[in-house]
Amino acid sequence: MARSLGRILKVFQSLGSLPFLSTPLMRPSASVSLRTNFVRTMMTLPSLFSFKPRDFSLPNSSWSAEMRRLYEHYDIQCEVETEAGGKQGGPWKRIPSFNRSLKFVPGGVYLSKIIQSKARLFTRNIRESGAAFEYVLFVNEEEQRCVCIFQAGHLLEGPPGHVHGGAIATMIDTVAGSHAAILSGPVMTANLNINYRSPIPLGSTVLIESCLDKQEGRKMCVSCKLTSNDGSKLHTEATALFLSINVSHLLREG
Amino acid sequence: MARSLGRILKVFQSLGSLPFLSTPLMRPSASVSLRTNFVRTMMTLPSLFSFKPRDFSLPNSSWSAEMRRLYEHYDIQCEVETEAGGKQGGPWKRIPSFNRSLKFVPGGVYLSKIIQSKARLFTRNIRESGAAFEYVLFVNEEEQRCVCIFQAGHLLEGPPGHVHGGAIATMIDTVAGSHAAILSGPVMTANLNINYRSPIPLGSTVLIESCLDKQEGRKMCVSCKLTSNDGSKLHTEATALFLSINVSHLLREG
Repeated sequence: MARSLGRILKVFQSLGSLPFLSTPLMRPSASVSLRTNFVRTMMTLPSLFSFKPRDFSLPNSSWSAEMRRLYEHYDIQCEVETEAGGKQGGPWKRIPSFNRSLKFVPGGVYLSKIIQSKARLFTRNIRESGAAFEYVLFVNEEEQRCVCIFQAGHLLEGPPGHVHGGAIATMIDTVAGSHAAILSGPVMTANLNINYRSPIPLGSTVLIESCLDKQEGRKMCVSCKLTSNDGSKLHTEATALFLSINVSHLLREG
Repeated sequence: MARSLGRILKVFQSLGSLPFLSTPLMRPSASVSLRTNFVRTMMTLPSLFSFKPRDFSLPNSSWSAEMRRLYEHYDIQCEVETEAGGKQGGPWKRIPSFNRSLKFVPGGVYLSKIIQSKARLFTRNIRESGAAFEYVLFVNEEEQRCVCIFQAGHLLEGPPGHVHGGAIATMIDTVAGSHAAILSGPVMTANLNINYRSPIPLGSTVLIESCLDKQEGRKMCVSCKLTSNDGSKLHTEATALFLSINVSHLLREG
């Protein structure tokens, strides 16, 4: 369980979901001391962490009835009752989702303060609920499967009335990338190969499922498909290749 | 020239760039009468069209010096002087870019009024200049080449400090799709195969170039690459397959 949580923490790091690390006071002086500094600052500056960052994966009023129903279906399986009447983790886990990231870049370049403080995760950059990407991701570690429930807002238009191919690619990268990161820590996308089968109307709730095809050294192959919410219509199929990276590489300051 | 402009008009249609068609008063009762209704309403309600929709492809204060320099480089080649001292179209054309679309969907489904009136093109859905996708596209019809100058804003973050793989895919779909549409009218994306070679720091200005590889019947294969603004560093390579579609298909009302 601890190992499992450790992996999920790594995922947040790789997905840019540790918002508090982006505050200047929290900036580690070198990658090796990230954890030490992080823990130390957590201890010495607790007031900085009294705010609760918004978890975008939780239901909001923009969610359709279908989106809520699917959320409940998986959420209820995140906790099961033990024989003694207690609670314990179930087969699925919900992955929280924030909109800020670490603000360091590889290659020795350090971003300007303006970009750093304003940077937001691409899929969570619009605050208006329901306008863009509404999604929640669940992982089943035993089955090596991820499921994402995705509701496509009106700001994702490509072909008239339908979701942009780039917005679909973004969700595939997000789901398959999260899946790879859950299994092996921080990753970078090396290849996406996407076949668009049928367009997705704006406002739809769709299911995105990913499964691990192969893991060899630093390489992870994940396949992914998008279907209508009852699974009857195939919208998009994709394969994705990810490379494990050392998180210190992303934290290096020039 | 007229044929050329006709093709570019088709591109606007396929890219959702005829904003005025989305106003309720302009909604055609059936696809066959689109042009008739459009012309009639243009004649009878000229006041509706006194506003000028924002062309997002024009320079704004958020553009970096490098972005402006590259823009000037191509823009100056959009008009050349004739021997008689007049002006005529040059080898390059700038493609205007708006943020609204036709609001009809295929398959007989008609979107709710809320989604229709609010829908925005994915790449132009944020009004704050410089925050997300800043880009301008130029086409050279004779050389069958497109060039896009793209400045990546702070809201496109994926890996810490870098552009999200989905945002890169979005730009590839946009550039290669516009290119295919310029050559053959409205298209839909059938496949994107993207190799990510090196990450793109937030705030960068990059060049995206596309060229036509093959055209067979309804199919068009376009290849695309993203490089640093001086062309020295390869960030991403991709191939894309598009299918020509009949625009009436996208206009069909159930």
